[in-house]
Amino acid sequence: MVGQNRYISDAVIRRLPRYYRYLGELLNSGVTRVSSGELSERMGSTASQIRQDFNHFGGFGQQGYGYNVELLYKEIGAILGMDHAHDVIIIGAGHIGKALVNYPNFVKRGFNITAIFDKDPRLIGTQVSELTVLSVDDLDEYLQAHPADIAVLAIPKLQAKEMAERLCSLGIQGIWNFASTDLEFDTDTCVVENVHLTDSLLRLSYRLNNR
Amino acid sequence: MVGQNRYISDAVIRRLPRYYRYLGELLNSGVTRVSSGELSERMGSTASQIRQDFNHFGGFGQQGYGYNVELLYKEIGAILGMDHAHDVIIIGAGHIGKALVNYPNFVKRGFNITAIFDKDPRLIGTQVSELTVLSVDDLDEYLQAHPADIAVLAIPKLQAKEMAERLCSLGIQGIWNFASTDLEFDTDTCVVENVHLTDSLLRLSYRLNNR
Repeated sequence: MVGQNRYISDAVIRRLPRYYRYLGELLNSGVTRVSSGELSERMGSTASQIRQDFNHFGGFGQQGYGYNVELLYKEIGAILGMDHAHDVIIIGAGHIGKALVNYPNFVKRGFNITAIFDKDPRLIGTQVSELTVLSVDDLDEYLQAHPADIAVLAIPKLQAKEMAERLCSLGIQGIWNFASTDLEFDTDTCVVENVHLTDSLLRLSYRLNNR
Repeated sequence: MVGQNRYISDAVIRRLPRYYRYLGELLNSGVTRVSSGELSERMGSTASQIRQDFNHFGGFGQQGYGYNVELLYKEIGAILGMDHAHDVIIIGAGHIGKALVNYPNFVKRGFNITAIFDKDPRLIGTQVSELTVLSVDDLDEYLQAHPADIAVLAIPKLQAKEMAERLCSLGIQGIWNFASTDLEFDTDTCVVENVHLTDSLLRLSYRLNNR
């Protein structure tokens, strides 16, 4: 792995998926080289910030005019763990859980949703796309037979912490948390990404209110 | 409004909804005063950053021990536009559009979803929670009779730009964009918040890959 062991700030980590996205778009449109200046324009930042960001990972060596798009895409992809597939289970077959099963971008990125669970007897056994909703009672057994890396939490806030702890004790490595509450774990136990859709809506409202 | 007219960075705007969320939680648990130190611990930042952030908005005057939680909650709420309700329409009655109609947090924050639209004849006329899916052909007429502030784009990438332009020309002020593509407008025309769920999943994958 290209990643180095020193501390990398949240702001840099936040930009990595965007670099990856933009490089993917360039690649799709047949662009083979890109300068830090062009990339910075797309990112809304500066060329010096781009170079600074990339230096955390060894710099990705510019040669002559700019970066090799395909190489840079692959290297940043590897840093993001896109060089291997991930098995993902979803906890909660409500509206959000269902929407995520059907979100085509995840499969494209190598996130394979292998199962969806709920505790509601009315949902267990029903079909969500190609998956049959399983009972959360069968989680232990399921994960023993089909280990997964990531669990998506799409359940109510008050049940989130207990479920996350259970999942991490069952070998889940990462929690993608849609339960509208911030979960925290020792990174030794589990890593968590808390999603707050409302925060994004409030940023829009802020911009509406202050333009 | 408390907001001042000088430039406020994205990083600060990104933290505002989190401040608001944490203050709401404190308020709910009956806490009446909070110091910048306590707040910074919750935010994972420093007391000096908190004070710096708040100085953009006039500082919110600490008196004696810390901030008055209720007052600060209200003031940050006003900056975020939470002192008035917003009418929201959703374009796209697929999985994401449906999930958003049913997301309880929006109503709690004063975002009233007034209508949902699609162009698929199989979806038009069907029921999503209490709303009947309307035809996008009726957008103009609908918005003349029921002006809305915000439109959510939950449609495929390739249709997003044209639809966003149409919405902005019909008086929509803000676009909350789930179409997996970055839209940009002059802020005079429309403000946009681009949501990229996959970016969040890639950050989780990064952390999994680099712990």
